[in-house]
Order: sequence, then C-alpha cells, then structure tokens
Amino acid sequence: MATRAVRWTLPRKVGPTAFTAFLDKLPYVAEAIVGVRGDREGRTWVEVDLADGADEPAVLGKMERAFVKMAKGFFELSTDTVVDHRDRPLPNARPAHAEMIERRWLLPYAPGCVGLQGPALALFHYFESRFLDLAARFEAARMQYPTLIAVDTLNTANYLTSFPHHITLGAHLRGDIDAIEGFQRDVVAPGAALLPAAAEPDHVLSPTVCIHCYKAIAGRQLGAGEMLRATAIGSCFRHERGRLDHKTRLWDFHMREIIFIGPADAVTAARKRSIELVAAWLDELGMAYWIETATDPFFVDNFSAQSFFQLANKTKYELLVKMPDSDRPLAIGSFNVHHDFFAKAFGLTAADGQPVHTGCTAFGVERFVHGFVAQHGLDERAWPEPVRQFVSAYGLACL
Amino acid sequence: MATRAVRWTLPRKVGPTAFTAFLDKLPYVAEAIVGVRGDREGRTWVEVDLADGADEPAVLGKMERAFVKMAKGFFELSTDTVVDHRDRPLPNARPAHAEMIERRWLLPYAPGCVGLQGPALALFHYFESRFLDLAARFEAARMQYPTLIAVDTLNTANYLTSFPHHITLGAHLRGDIDAIEGFQRDVVAPGAALLPAAAEPDHVLSPTVCIHCYKAIAGRQLGAGEMLRATAIGSCFRHERGRLDHKTRLWDFHMREIIFIGPADAVTAARKRSIELVAAWLDELGMAYWIETATDPFFVDNFSAQSFFQLANKTKYELLVKMPDSDRPLAIGSFNVHHDFFAKAFGLTAADGQPVHTGCTAFGVERFVHGFVAQHGLDERAWPEPVRQFVSAYGLACL
Repeated sequence: MATRAVRWTLPRKVGPTAFTAFLDKLPYVAEAIVGVRGDREGRTWVEVDLADGADEPAVLGKMERAFVKMAKGFFELSTDTVVDHRDRPLPNARPAHAEMIERRWLLPYAPGCVGLQGPALALFHYFESRFLDLAARFEAARMQYPTLIAVDTLNTANYLTSFPHHITLGAHLRGDIDAIEGFQRDVVAPGAALLPAAAEPDHVLSPTVCIHCYKAIAGRQLGAGEMLRATAIGSCFRHERGRLDHKTRLWDFHMREIIFIGPADAVTAARKRSIELVAAWLDELGMAYWIETATDPFFVDNFSAQSFFQLANKTKYELLVKMPDSDRPLAIGSFNVHHDFFAKAFGLTAADGQPVHTGCTAFGVERFVHGFVAQHGLDERAWPEPVRQFVSAYGLACL
Repeated sequence: MATRAVRWTLPRKVGPTAFTAFLDKLPYVAEAIVGVRGDREGRTWVEVDLADGADEPAVLGKMERAFVKMAKGFFELSTDTVVDHRDRPLPNARPAHAEMIERRWLLPYAPGCVGLQGPALALFHYFESRFLDLAARFEAARMQYPTLIAVDTLNTANYLTSFPHHITLGAHLRGDIDAIEGFQRDVVAPGAALLPAAAEPDHVLSPTVCIHCYKAIAGRQLGAGEMLRATAIGSCFRHERGRLDHKTRLWDFHMREIIFIGPADAVTAARKRSIELVAAWLDELGMAYWIETATDPFFVDNFSAQSFFQLANKTKYELLVKMPDSDRPLAIGSFNVHHDFFAKAFGLTAADGQPVHTGCTAFGVERFVHGFVAQHGLDERAWPEPVRQFVSAYGLACL
C-alpha cells in the first residue's frame, strides 16, 4: 500500500507521559493513519503515515481534536517506585520472539492471536500454578466467569465510556433466513460485508476479569470487618489498533486475577501483601523487574480525570520487566485498588451500609511467558530449578 | 410482549429426525418467531408464536422455504448404538438446575452465559483432569489456541457456509475518533445501535476447537504410518437462538478435544479406543449413558448432504446421558472421524502425498458437570469416591 508521511507540530509541548499516550492512541483517531512516529526527545511533533487517497486536512483536524481533549488539564506527576530490581544481571537474556515461533512454541495465527505449545505452554501452566498458590495464601474462592460480558454490566461499571477504543463486540447473526443465507453467500466473497447479517449486540468480549465478580455478588452486604476474596482466570480482549503483534500486544489473551472486596484498610493491606509475595517469588526466579505507579490506557474525553485520579491516589501499581529487544519495559501484572468505585456501582456494602472498597491483583499470563523467556533464554535446562522441574514434568512435545 | 400462535401444516410428513431438526431451527428463520412447538407424534404440523405486528404471510413463506430446502433429499437412517447403559439405576437423580443456582454453584449471567464456582467448578476441573489422563493415554501434545478464529480459516474448512446460524462475529471498533465518540455516546443510550461503530470483522468467536489444530500444521507431510495426536481445551461459542438457557444450551462454553491426524485405520482405531476408555470411566462413575451415531445441527442448503454423509459413514458418535428433567437426552461428548475432509482442506498429507484422515474426541465440559449433578445429586458426600476426593481437595468455597 502506498503511504505518505505527514509531520504535525503539536499545538504545545506536553510532558513525556502525555506525549507517549497521544502517540499510542493516534491509530484510533482515523482509519487513514497506518503508521505513527514521534519526537520522543523534544516532544514537539508527531509523524503519521497516511494511506493513499486520505483526506489530509480531515485527518489533521481529528488529530487536533484528540490532542486538545487529551491534553486538557493533564498533570504530569512523578511516579512512585516501590520495588526496584531492574538491574539484576540476566546472563541468558536475548530477544526470544522469532525463535519461539521458529521452534513452534508460539503459533502466530494473526496479529494479536496466538497459540502456545511445548515449553511455552508448560511455562503458562507453571505461572498459573504459582498464581493459584498466591491466591491460596489469601484463601480466595475459585470462580469461573463467561468470556462474554453484557453491555449493561460494563455500563454499570462505567467501563465503555471510559475505555471504548479497544472493545470487541460479540455480535451473533440475526434470526432470519434471509440474513443467514446472505451471510452464507457473502462470507466466501472477498471483501463482502458481514455486519449486515448481524443482530445488534448486547454482549462484548470481556476486556477484564474482576467486573464479572462484582456483578456476581451485586447488592451484597458484607459482615463487620469481612473481606471477600476470589480468584479466576479469564480470556480478555483488547484490540490495540496499530500495535498488535504475536508477543506482548495481544488482542486475545489470558488474565489471572485475585480480587479483594471489603474494608479499605484490609483491601490496601491485601495489595501490599500481594506485592511482597510476588516480589519474593520473582526474586527467587532471578527476574529483572520493578513495580511503580501507572496510568491505564485512556480515551480523549476521560483521560485527564482518569490519569490524574490513578496517579494521585496510587490506584494502580504496575509490575514491569526489562525486555532485551525494546527500550520500553513490559507490564506483566498490576496491583490495583479501586476505592469504592466498583462497590458503589454494584451496591456492595459493609455492615454499616456504606460502600466497601475493592482491589485486584492481575497477571497477564502470556506476558509472563514472554518476559520470562526473553530474560532467561530458550534453553529450559538453564531455567531456575523449580521452573525446570515443573516444565519437564508437564511435557514439552510440540506439533 | 403480546404474541399470537400460528399453526402451519407441513407440506408433507417427514421422519422424526428431520421433524426435530426443522423444529430446532425455526427460531433462525424469522426474527418474529419467538416460540416454537410441534406435533412430534404425528409430525404433520408446527406452531410458532409470532411477535405482535409480525407479517404472517412473509414468515410462513420463509418457513416454507426453509422446510423445502431442509427436507429435499433427506434420508431417515437408522442410528447405530455402540454402548448402552441408559437404564443404569440412579438413586440420587433429580432436576438439579434450580438448586445449583440457589446454592450459587452456577451463576446465571445471561441466557447462554454462566459462571461456575464451588462444587460445580471443582467438578469442571475433575472432568478436565480425567480428559487429560485420557489424552495422556494417546501421548497427545498439549496445545492452547486463541478464542478468536479467522474467517479465512473457517472458510478453508467450509464451516461458515455449512453452519452459519450459530456464528458470533468478533467485531472491534473502527479506528476513527468519530466512530469511537459515537460508540461512547450510543452505548449508554437504551436501544441505540452499536454496529455502526464496528469495523467489518475478519474474525469470529471459535465455534469449535480442532480447526485451530489443522490450521497450525497446515501443509504438513507426515512420515510413513505416523499419527499426530494433540489435545486442547477452548472456549467455544454457538448462539442457539430460542434455546439458550443456563444449563445445557450455552452460547459461551468450554470444549476439550483430543485430535488424531494420520492413516485412516489408525484414526479409526483411536476413535474406537477413545470410546472404550470413556465408557470404562463412565461405568466406574455409575453414569446412565449411551453412545450412538448422530447428526450435527445443519442449515437449509447443506442439510441433506451433510446429514446423509454423517450417518451413512458413521462419522459422528454421540455420548448421551439421561436427564431427569427432560424427555430428550443430553449430548455431552462426541467421537468423530472426518475422513480426509479437513486434511484436504489444510493440505495434510501422508508420506505418499495423499491426504491423511483426521478425527477428534470432544467433551462439552459444562455439560459433563450438569449431566453428573443431575444424575448423582447435589450432596457431594454421596458422589463416587474418586470424584468426592478430588472435589474436596479442590475446595468448595462459594462467594
């Protein structure tokens, strides 16, 4: 596809967090934007590749709208680092992605959609077993949630207006012989539209795990001092337009969460204890990692309020690992407290009738696999002993 | 909603299989059809409930089109039963569904979308552990596939033209600030359309597991006499319009498969061995079950050819259990051989360059849970000893 590069000077200079956030979200601004670069040093311009025939003034107008909304009232706050082992020596670290595909540990079905087998799948289950050990330390109840989640439920959590850009609709076909026959005909015709056969969706693919939990116990009043604990793994879906790959930017991935619902101090203490337990485990595994306050992805309207809230209240700590093939670290987990946000939304109250607090500790399972292999290499005989033992008992066969 | 019942006399009498199939698929014929009944004895008429304001002649016209296509050339073949323990005594059998919800073992999020916890989730993992034991008898390689599957891949397997009616599209939003802002606005407006914000989908939610496996090894030439074996659990999605519930007709469920790829005689032998091993296990568990040849769901155009093919060639054996709350048995698994159909589609060949054969043994995990609880009751102390032990070690806590 022929493209042309267009440089756009920012109306004003912004801080590094806002600049990176703007750059990351440019692919969502106009379909004609097929590539993105930026002046990360000076933060005075961005450059986009426009598809042939794009309406340049219209695209630039949309970029300006997005910039103005995003930058409005944005505060550049310092981040707080609570654990720092980013400089631990990693003698076996190397870019691992291409070789994982070559060895067929990683099956690249499509950008954002992968399969795992052999040692990579064994690692997936090793991490899962350790996440379950961690959940057992909190005596968390095991739960399993659907993959689909109702639009109504996400609206109750104010999720879709806050994070619309990565949503995937789950749209079944209309119950009509004409629609179904039309789909049968069009689905094999290159370029034919399939959406006309779809019914208006009332479900989307889950972007997160813990909202299912709050929905399951909506309206619950807890006992005095009681804290509920639950754990679940779920398939999650975030369509990271323009950034999907086969390693760390997945559309379709797994998240394990441990969820805490109860008094503010107990939820905060559970977060602190999660961080300590995970840090001790990653130290045993010899990982180079750190944990710091973080902002979530955003979209225009809500960015200012959300980012400020997250940082100012330290609602989210991110677990980051160094990647040998990138300047940017990889976020493989997070330790979150949501104050009474979800409790208010789903009517979860304490004995006194006031909303409780919630929090969750979340792990991106495929990212743990990628981070580990990138830091420890592809020779499983050189992996830390408990990992090596688990993986060899699991079986390493690949088709 | 006000409805009116309309009885329609079939143009001609059909056999019981065709009649049931027609009845099951009526909800896909017109959106105005909101209820379905039929004369299962005489097989001379069906009755549909039409939504208020429905165009009755148009609906009846569509029903006639669907009937004619479906019935054309349909052969009513006798089924072949290979194992029959349907009359095993079940002292603890009782309808279990309502009580599973009451005890919170089963979380009814929406029709077709459920969560599990407590003993029901423990059972889910007990069955999974036994499916993995079975897979280990075949030394099957463990694999994990994405939840999404490319439209192109399903087209290669000729799946979407054969079984379009239960498909769910995975449609992410368009990369355009206007589309995303429109979605933010409309998603909170009752009844507003969300599809206009969606991009044309190139993926759907997987309706099955094994096609991912054939895609992963597409173009592979096997060694002389070699048979590949793989196993995976996956989330599967089939929107059974008009029949979704919280127990056995799920939109969003899990399937465990063991997949065989190799010489025709080896694949057939693996199917036979699967049946023997599963039957021995279900005998230990004291289940009332049988295994017989079966037809898959269908849609108009392809029904005649497919159903005939399946029965005539005994491509699919279904594992059925008796349900105390229903006249119809519940299909909880299947043992399938596909001859060279998928091998031809995905270029899987033997040493001599000819297409190999494929087969798969498939288990609906949630259906195993429902079938077991309906037959053995809700008191886990009365469950067969190996199940009781597994479940109590797993933990029974419910939120």
